Amino acid sequence: MSSSNSLSVAVLPGDGIGAEVMGPCLEVIDAVTSRVGDISLSFKEVPAGAACYRDHGEALPKETLEEVRNADAILLAAMGMPDIRYPDGTEIAPQLDIRFELDLYAGVRPVRSIPGVPGPLSDPRAQALDFVLIRESTEGLFASHGKGTIEDNRIARDTMEITREVSEKLFDFSFNLARKRKAAGHEGRLTCVDKANVFTSFAFFRSIFDERAAENNDLIADYAYVDAMALNLVRNPWVYDVAVTENMFGDILSDLGAALIGGMGMAPSADVGDEHAVFQPCHGSAPDIVGSGKANPTAMFLSAGMMLEWLADKHDRPAYGKAGALLTAAVDKAFAAGNLLPFELGGESGTTDVTNAVIAAVDQVC
Amino acid sequence: MSSSNSLSVAVLPGDGIGAEVMGPCLEVIDAVTSRVGDISLSFKEVPAGAACYRDHGEALPKETLEEVRNADAILLAAMGMPDIRYPDGTEIAPQLDIRFELDLYAGVRPVRSIPGVPGPLSDPRAQALDFVLIRESTEGLFASHGKGTIEDNRIARDTMEITREVSEKLFDFSFNLARKRKAAGHEGRLTCVDKANVFTSFAFFRSIFDERAAENNDLIADYAYVDAMALNLVRNPWVYDVAVTENMFGDILSDLGAALIGGMGMAPSADVGDEHAVFQPCHGSAPDIVGSGKANPTAMFLSAGMMLEWLADKHDRPAYGKAGALLTAAVDKAFAAGNLLPFELGGESGTTDVTNAVIAAVDQVC
Ligand SMILES: CC(C)[C@H](C(=O)O)[C@@H](O)C(=O)O
Ligand SMILES: CC(C)[C@H](C(=O)O)[C@@H](O)C(=O)O
Repeated sequence: MSSSNSLSVAVLPGDGIGAEVMGPCLEVIDAVTSRVGDISLSFKEVPAGAACYRDHGEALPKETLEEVRNADAILLAAMGMPDIRYPDGTEIAPQLDIRFELDLYAGVRPVRSIPGVPGPLSDPRAQALDFVLIRESTEGLFASHGKGTIEDNRIARDTMEITREVSEKLFDFSFNLARKRKAAGHEGRLTCVDKANVFTSFAFFRSIFDERAAENNDLIADYAYVDAMALNLVRNPWVYDVAVTENMFGDILSDLGAALIGGMGMAPSADVGDEHAVFQPCHGSAPDIVGSGKANPTAMFLSAGMMLEWLADKHDRPAYGKAGALLTAAVDKAFAAGNLLPFELGGESGTTDVTNAVIAAVDQVC
Repeated sequence: MSSSNSLSVAVLPGDGIGAEVMGPCLEVIDAVTSRVGDISLSFKEVPAGAACYRDHGEALPKETLEEVRNADAILLAAMGMPDIRYPDGTEIAPQLDIRFELDLYAGVRPVRSIPGVPGPLSDPRAQALDFVLIRESTEGLFASHGKGTIEDNRIARDTMEITREVSEKLFDFSFNLARKRKAAGHEGRLTCVDKANVFTSFAFFRSIFDERAAENNDLIADYAYVDAMALNLVRNPWVYDVAVTENMFGDILSDLGAALIGGMGMAPSADVGDEHAVFQPCHGSAPDIVGSGKANPTAMFLSAGMMLEWLADKHDRPAYGKAGALLTAAVDKAFAAGNLLPFELGGESGTTDVTNAVIAAVDQVC
């Protein structure tokens, strides 16, 4: 990591529409950072993904992993292509390997409505959602990635693993986020989502949650079973503040959360560890729309906003936080007028339209 | 099982509001069967559940299991109470044990809108949902029920198991249902929901699905990853016909499905095996509303309707099918008028109101 004044960002456009949203994202970052000033970011693009695997035989080359480890932050667009697979038929998803390699245990997936973007729920309260799902991202069922077995073509097994060490860090991270949100006017509540009524590993997960809740008793701690949570996220998602869960459950629930705010193209994410962090839109490489100009760059932009805020906290550099807040405000402003509607929401605003509107909005919200 | 003309039903009211919805359900069954005629059902109530465990030390007494095995069908209301648990802290859920003991591999969970019951989605197409989720109900992650481990208070594990034997039966069952629905005007499509991009056991699951799809090529077979499915069920649930998935995923997605049609009180289910079947509302024992008269018996009624139709098919007795269809039509009729709104949906129609309206509707739809 850089010890100089400049902070370095490893840039992984990846596959499919990845490059199509990454380019505009770097423009938007430039627009906000040059406005705020006192910011010095250097960007280095590195290869990874399905096309990289096809062309070089490696989905996550050693040099890329090295660059990623040495960078102050990682900006990732999209990876994987349905037609390019490992010999065993599974898809190429180096984003999983990065999460494991860099111990990015906290997958932060905000579910925040953007005024002007239509959501699927009819209740007016659903137009102002603002909660965060935290998906553990290095173990749980995904501990079995690459390790599942098939016996005699008769029975297949994958083993879910939940460790005390990671769970403690995950819950502390989550309580800290809830505390930060409480200071900003939210409820200050953390909901543990599990299936502790049926599984030993989830009873273990919940017991560690209870221990950490006792240490964080300035905050409200409660629980939900994952099945009830899926129902609640449709029926009354506005009651949540921060919710934390296992990797596989978080994968499912965060897509459900993205659906509530306009789909994957609107949903940013951060995979955060003690040292490193990856910032990435929730959407995939969308091979069906590559080259059409239809890709929605919003989630990529909002992920960059999260990156700037994370860099501000980590390196105690308020200017980066200002830039992150400005980026998010510009996205909100661009959609608030109500004449921007991405293709995936039935509109006709393409990548360029959204990008131009956001860059124009930077001036307006300054 | 009875070889005489009469068919026997084991009745398990279970815990909490279980008895409050079971009583009315038996009344409704009586109303439809006596209308149709040529039906002879005998009912025998047997104990199981959390209160049974508290009072007799067993959640599923041997005699109950025996009765359940000998019955032609099993009608179950709700089981489990948060305050009564096994020594290890997990909840009492003999419904899981029954699924395992009787090999009830196909958990059938219809997601059908009832006109007059408000749903959460604003798109008008969501007012006419009619698809079926099939949750494998004897293995998957639940194979680990009671078998999870904790090592040194440091790492906990639960192992998901997917077998060829059960998967083949599950897919054949699901294709047959899709075929039956096709004959009734539906698309004739089965969607396999998995996470085959990441896990060996789901790649195995999908490969068996492909084999069975080749044998059922009069029907459309396609796939969805479970995370995308969670999003799609919110954004465009009307595109599905029949979807089939693993036990844990099905638990989550079927609650999401219930949310789309008015909540757990509106969602019936059937757990079906080659020999036996349990019919049960998706809701739990709801201790918070016991004794208030607020319990919504609709899902219990609709489950009984599924039971009558299943008995008709299994024993080739069309009168039972007529009674099942009549029961479902009476529920629809009762809600169609629009002046019935259960408490969980913000209304004031209690157990008795719904029951009386459905019984009155039996006469109207005859
Ligand atoms: C592409 C896939 C492996 C990945 C995951 O399951 O984690 C994606 O769904 C995500 O949520 O980042
Ligand atoms: C009560 C619980 C054990 C059960 C399950 O997880 O199967 C319930 O959620 C269900 O869906 O029937």
